[in-house]
Amino acid sequence: MGREQLRRDALRIIEEAFWLSRPDEAVRRALEKISPGRGKIILVAVGKAAWQMAKTAADCLGDRYEKGYVITKYGHFKGEIPRIEIMEAGHPVVDDNSVKATETVLEAVQSLSSEDQVLFLLSGGGSALFEKPKIPLEELKKINQSLLACGADIGEINQIRKRLSMVKGGRFAKLCEPARVTAIILSDVVGDHPEMIASGPAYPDSASEEEVLEIIKKYDLSFSETVMKALKEDPVTTLNHVETYVTGGVGQLCRSAAQLCRKAGYETEILTDTLTCEAREAGSFLGSVAAFQVKKGVRKAFVAGGETIVHLKGTGKGGRNQEIALAAAEEIAGLERVVVASASSDGTDGPTDAAGGIVDGTTRECLKEKGISIFETLKRNDSYHALQAADGLILTGPTGTNVNDVALILIAEE
Amino acid sequence: MGREQLRRDALRIIEEAFWLSRPDEAVRRALEKISPGRGKIILVAVGKAAWQMAKTAADCLGDRYEKGYVITKYGHFKGEIPRIEIMEAGHPVVDDNSVKATETVLEAVQSLSSEDQVLFLLSGGGSALFEKPKIPLEELKKINQSLLACGADIGEINQIRKRLSMVKGGRFAKLCEPARVTAIILSDVVGDHPEMIASGPAYPDSASEEEVLEIIKKYDLSFSETVMKALKEDPVTTLNHVETYVTGGVGQLCRSAAQLCRKAGYETEILTDTLTCEAREAGSFLGSVAAFQVKKGVRKAFVAGGETIVHLKGTGKGGRNQEIALAAAEEIAGLERVVVASASSDGTDGPTDAAGGIVDGTTRECLKEKGISIFETLKRNDSYHALQAADGLILTGPTGTNVNDVALILIAEE
Repeated sequence: MGREQLRRDALRIIEEAFWLSRPDEAVRRALEKISPGRGKIILVAVGKAAWQMAKTAADCLGDRYEKGYVITKYGHFKGEIPRIEIMEAGHPVVDDNSVKATETVLEAVQSLSSEDQVLFLLSGGGSALFEKPKIPLEELKKINQSLLACGADIGEINQIRKRLSMVKGGRFAKLCEPARVTAIILSDVVGDHPEMIASGPAYPDSASEEEVLEIIKKYDLSFSETVMKALKEDPVTTLNHVETYVTGGVGQLCRSAAQLCRKAGYETEILTDTLTCEAREAGSFLGSVAAFQVKKGVRKAFVAGGETIVHLKGTGKGGRNQEIALAAAEEIAGLERVVVASASSDGTDGPTDAAGGIVDGTTRECLKEKGISIFETLKRNDSYHALQAADGLILTGPTGTNVNDVALILIAEE
Repeated sequence: MGREQLRRDALRIIEEAFWLSRPDEAVRRALEKISPGRGKIILVAVGKAAWQMAKTAADCLGDRYEKGYVITKYGHFKGEIPRIEIMEAGHPVVDDNSVKATETVLEAVQSLSSEDQVLFLLSGGGSALFEKPKIPLEELKKINQSLLACGADIGEINQIRKRLSMVKGGRFAKLCEPARVTAIILSDVVGDHPEMIASGPAYPDSASEEEVLEIIKKYDLSFSETVMKALKEDPVTTLNHVETYVTGGVGQLCRSAAQLCRKAGYETEILTDTLTCEAREAGSFLGSVAAFQVKKGVRKAFVAGGETIVHLKGTGKGGRNQEIALAAAEEIAGLERVVVASASSDGTDGPTDAAGGIVDGTTRECLKEKGISIFETLKRNDSYHALQAADGLILTGPTGTNVNDVALILIAEE
């Protein structure tokens, strides 16, 4: 198997994996796993991708759902969906319409029977869009501001937020009782934890009262008596009537890519789906893995997903995936039977029209002949132009999804 | 299997792998694979570890070798070895004694029969110690200087050097004909390529005349007629009477570590043995691999070797392996059933008395309780003190070997 075949495989696998990571694909896949109940189905979709998720679910379910609600960001309405009320609200800051829309949903789920089912479709942005605070909204906003300002990390901020909300930290799911809740969560954060996404309206709250008070002490915060009382209320610690499916996300992207690699005959291993280090160093690491593994002479693939970072120092054009690919080119220079590719699932890597980069054993030599040094290029953050010169840009156009990045190593058999 | 057991396993595996990487162990292991001939055995040991390699070979072979020669660096004589002439010479710059010692060796191997065997023990530093130039020594030294100054990389420099030498680029092995040559090469460079070590006295020269002339043109070098004539002489392109065993080196270190992991019941994969990226980023990458793999619930080990780098910015105390471990601690924080360890095979990581660091899911929390931030610590390059506070230093003392670094991920079954 030649270099060209490896390149074709890599590009095809990446494009197909992105296709499978679109929100509608993710919802469709999750719905296949869900057992239908005997009662009615109520759709509740919340988040920036709520409209698209609700549309897909409505199309799949047809007559089988009774009614539904969408709460999404202003301007995200894309047309009517049968029997579904579509509401727009504030994001990233919660507003009166968030609260009103949330109240509409809460009312609809309050008188269901144990045979009924709430299909809860959650995507990123749900934290601001889906909210009914225990305290006045203006006070909540001030607390949010002081939490962001005091240096608390997102996990700590969410622990406080959950306690001040009537829907976060599993309380929404609790209110649906006795109806069953099936949550399909479209993840847009590296790590995919359902507790983190929109502060987990259908996920138990694992923090104890002590932990919450500890955060207040640590950052020297002071709250009103009402707030302190709310913070001390018992959290929802168990939710036996909830089934959760986390879908989409970079984890799913990696699994899709791995499956496609296997289908193409590569023995495949996912290394990680939580890569967050400096892009060029990740590229060097991946390149050295590729250089070592190619010696084994076996047809093999490695997948790594996440969202690496670039500390910009130069003024060139490029993106994190292009830096990964270019740095890997240095490590696999001169080697046959191997390609390394990395791409952003939204089709736009950094401020460029490329999704990422693809390199092989000839890339460094090809650049050298054109007087381009990989080292100097990375120093200037100019990966785009170098890859362009070495036929190494991946161009997909906009993909309609956004679930971070995936990198591939493909190795041909000897 | 608890955290303590994982830590014990990791520390034991690292120490044993270092033990197996000592030069004498490496020679002993290689000698086991060598079939004895019917004729005489001549030992030729060249390099900084020549004395130790010759001593081990002499002890192993007993009466079975006829005589031998050691060429090593000044001050590296450590005592007589039966029937072995020990010569010291210049390093890193070749001198008259290098040439004289080399001539002594060449004379001894010139009248051997096809039943005889030259056991060639090569270690780092051999390029200066083992040399008989085709041109005057002073001219060679000047050429070496101009090559180093012109910006040519080490591969290019070696291509020129080989052509100007009567022993490099396979010529030594050629001169041993018709005797068989068994080369045991103790590698001290990441990548382990026998062509690179001491410019390959017993390894064919792969560069064509065109490639050599290309280098001269590229760097605008000008040489005398004698030099140009020597450069154009035919290289040694095939050596059918030579068997080469590359031993020691970080490749061997990784294989030893992997074998010990398997023996301890871990399903084991070597990721790479050529890791050269920024230490803390390698640690973040390894940590994210650990965090992903631990979810599978299987008893597993990953090995990665190489020599990472640290771009010093702070004034703290630490080393590259300690930075790897500390950065990994961030990624595996809160996880059970996993440890990450990294250590330098000479027992000294950076300017510290620690060989490296070991961390687990409790490390970050333990540091946090003591008011130590991993991010801030890495900024100050102060990994030593942070690991010390979290019981995370690996202390082996001097190990008697020096074959770069190895990192381990150990994962316990659920």
